[in-house]
Amino acid sequence: MAYFDAASAAPLHPVARQALLASLDEGWADPARLYREGRRARMLLDAAREAVAEAVGCRADEVVFTSSGTRAVHAGVSGVLAGRRRVGRHLIVSSVEHSSVLHSAEAHEADGGTMTRVAVDRSGAVDPASYAVALRPDTALACLQSANHEVGTVQPVAEVAEVCRAAGVPLLVDAAQSLGWGPVAGGWSVLAGSAHKWGGPSGVGLLVVRKGVRFAVRGPADERESGRAAGFENIPAIVAAAASLRAVRAEADREAERLRELTERIRARVPRLVPDVEVVGDPERRLPGVVTFSCLYVDGEALLHELDRAGFSVSSGSSCTSSTLTPSHVLKAMGVLSEGNVRVSLPPGTAEEDVERFLQVLPGAVAGVREKLGAPTPAVAAAVQRDELVVDALGKRCPIPVIELAKVIGDVPVGGTVRVLSDDEAARLDIPAWCEMRGQEYVGEEQAEKGTAYLVRRTG
Amino acid sequence: MAYFDAASAAPLHPVARQALLASLDEGWADPARLYREGRRARMLLDAAREAVAEAVGCRADEVVFTSSGTRAVHAGVSGVLAGRRRVGRHLIVSSVEHSSVLHSAEAHEADGGTMTRVAVDRSGAVDPASYAVALRPDTALACLQSANHEVGTVQPVAEVAEVCRAAGVPLLVDAAQSLGWGPVAGGWSVLAGSAHKWGGPSGVGLLVVRKGVRFAVRGPADERESGRAAGFENIPAIVAAAASLRAVRAEADREAERLRELTERIRARVPRLVPDVEVVGDPERRLPGVVTFSCLYVDGEALLHELDRAGFSVSSGSSCTSSTLTPSHVLKAMGVLSEGNVRVSLPPGTAEEDVERFLQVLPGAVAGVREKLGAPTPAVAAAVQRDELVVDALGKRCPIPVIELAKVIGDVPVGGTVRVLSDDEAARLDIPAWCEMRGQEYVGEEQAEKGTAYLVRRTG
Repeated sequence: MAYFDAASAAPLHPVARQALLASLDEGWADPARLYREGRRARMLLDAAREAVAEAVGCRADEVVFTSSGTRAVHAGVSGVLAGRRRVGRHLIVSSVEHSSVLHSAEAHEADGGTMTRVAVDRSGAVDPASYAVALRPDTALACLQSANHEVGTVQPVAEVAEVCRAAGVPLLVDAAQSLGWGPVAGGWSVLAGSAHKWGGPSGVGLLVVRKGVRFAVRGPADERESGRAAGFENIPAIVAAAASLRAVRAEADREAERLRELTERIRARVPRLVPDVEVVGDPERRLPGVVTFSCLYVDGEALLHELDRAGFSVSSGSSCTSSTLTPSHVLKAMGVLSEGNVRVSLPPGTAEEDVERFLQVLPGAVAGVREKLGAPTPAVAAAVQRDELVVDALGKRCPIPVIELAKVIGDVPVGGTVRVLSDDEAARLDIPAWCEMRGQEYVGEEQAEKGTAYLVRRTG
Repeated sequence: MAYFDAASAAPLHPVARQALLASLDEGWADPARLYREGRRARMLLDAAREAVAEAVGCRADEVVFTSSGTRAVHAGVSGVLAGRRRVGRHLIVSSVEHSSVLHSAEAHEADGGTMTRVAVDRSGAVDPASYAVALRPDTALACLQSANHEVGTVQPVAEVAEVCRAAGVPLLVDAAQSLGWGPVAGGWSVLAGSAHKWGGPSGVGLLVVRKGVRFAVRGPADERESGRAAGFENIPAIVAAAASLRAVRAEADREAERLRELTERIRARVPRLVPDVEVVGDPERRLPGVVTFSCLYVDGEALLHELDRAGFSVSSGSSCTSSTLTPSHVLKAMGVLSEGNVRVSLPPGTAEEDVERFLQVLPGAVAGVREKLGAPTPAVAAAVQRDELVVDALGKRCPIPVIELAKVIGDVPVGGTVRVLSDDEAARLDIPAWCEMRGQEYVGEEQAEKGTAYLVRRTG
């Protein structure tokens, strides 16, 4: 059994467990009280704040403990937007931010604010010049993640921070995916993190607001955590978060090197082991433990299920998983294939054997799903050839439209076209991505009587 | 060493500790994921929700886990106010609610809403008829605590719920202080609770919203907990909260009887052991473990410090404690003495010997503080008598103004007056309370050149 979904939540680090246990008896009282139990709780809280500040590279009084990373992002975005309201109500985010940032941005828009989404390249990275273009005199805040949670691409935070600094605009960095690996470089203004991503306990987020950044708390007043995080402090969990951050940092360099080698194997070998695969994300500037790929003609949920049965826990940005019916906004923004998408995110300590076993199991799992779906195989021979074929995939979900397209492309002559009718949102992303992967020409889409028609010209 | 501040935070119940430990290894994954670890986490979360629903007396799908009781109150108040905005923007709260409710109400007022504060009697209880008077056609929500956190008085929730129901207005009950003792009776609509008040861990609040209550989430979208509590679920803590609620409930009847007897001893004996004491709160309709009293001529912080040195952790609603400079809004609303205020709140399991030892230590602690402050003693003889005396206590903090008043009242003849000049907010509450306790006539206050002049007529 191997858990390969650390980017979603990491198992509790042994040091976090120890610290949590040790502080359950010392840290339950109200740290605002002056009696013995309150003073002990206050001491634990202060020590945890110092430890986190050191790991983040900031002052202790700039650190606020929230109840989750999501809360840290919500409070950070709304706090700066409110604090700088006189400057204006324009917000900049990258198009591949975590949903907590994007939902904050949408709430801001719903409240009458304006927003610019900065595009990314095919590797998932932003260009600092795009932030320079997006900045306006009324820009109150810009947001950029330190590294992407779905494909692992590391963002040019220091460069974007410099661009923002020059314009006098604070940059909020969602550092949830990278904080366990090291501090965020550059002149950022606000930072958010989440303990359960680095092996700390659930229930602890970090919000760091540099001195001098205008910040106004929204919502009902609360005296705790500088008024920036309402609710009784969860001190045992905060202590465990701080202790585990220190512990994972101590192992970070060695472990990063080891995981990077393991994910490099997956990056290199998956395309050789599995036909019709696209590995996505930046091959160099990336998180050590994350590798993401998409498999043509595969239903993401079915593949996850096969891998789970084989003992591997991974996640997917495909549209056909669990409750979601649209593909991951990250894969969409990158313009890469979303069908049969698999994110492997190795927790520190992952055994080499488990990665090797994953590479053994994966080809069979993919082949099994493809077989069930009736996906095309190289053996399928072209039959009658007509100049234009229409594939009616209306009412059929990803990856069926692409499978049907692949089955008939050989039936039209080179130069002929296939017209795929589909009402599945994922087709808009996956048909062009398939064309790029297979060297066919994607002509474009047009409104059909029902759904959308996607035109593909056979070029080879 | 005895911890007598359970109303602030209770030490972790042994069952909470066991459940927390047991679920650290099972409950860290994302319960929205379909793989093994996610399914296990989901099962734990579902089971905890069922257990809490049973203890509260509601449906499982009405229970939302928040990160604290404060968050539950904030979300509950803002959610109902937003959901019923078309009805109107009038909110009713009692004047002795917890600060989380009052701060929510203040935020609502700052946002253009209106608010009525329902007064309480000298015991701290509201009259259901006052809610009937306060209800208006545009009332969106009424709030009432199940029992008061500072003086322990139990509120007539069922009667107020009935009054609200008749008017078609939902009642939100802050049940933080009573949920460990039993479910809240009556037809309430929304309920809030806090696990660390019943011996559960920090980091878990409860928000229960009955089906049919209009509710609209404020702030950025988040898919977890029916969209009503943003952030990754803290499942080990939630499991521990549910398990400990069940455990404390199993012991509640027996323990309530035992603690009630112990607090009854304090209620009865403190006024005999310590001169010039007022025991506050309802003597009958009250929480089993809470008793509150105020000591004339005593500085609350100094008394807390003395008691802490003697091994007792209690809290105070006096103005002169830690960071606060105004007396507790609860004592103020009740119109009782706030100086030298002590709240004793016994956690379940409190040993009888500890209570006895507290009663032994208290008289000496009070006398020590009074001596240091130069408080009047019965031995002080009256000297020259004048018809009117002025006491200049400007710049002096509680309890000095009352001490100075007490020292000179014997210096004016019966019928004569003392004029106390003070700029301490606590004097407004404590001088009338002193008059009531000592059988002197409080004439009233008037604006003075500096501060306020409080007029007292000697009647005996």
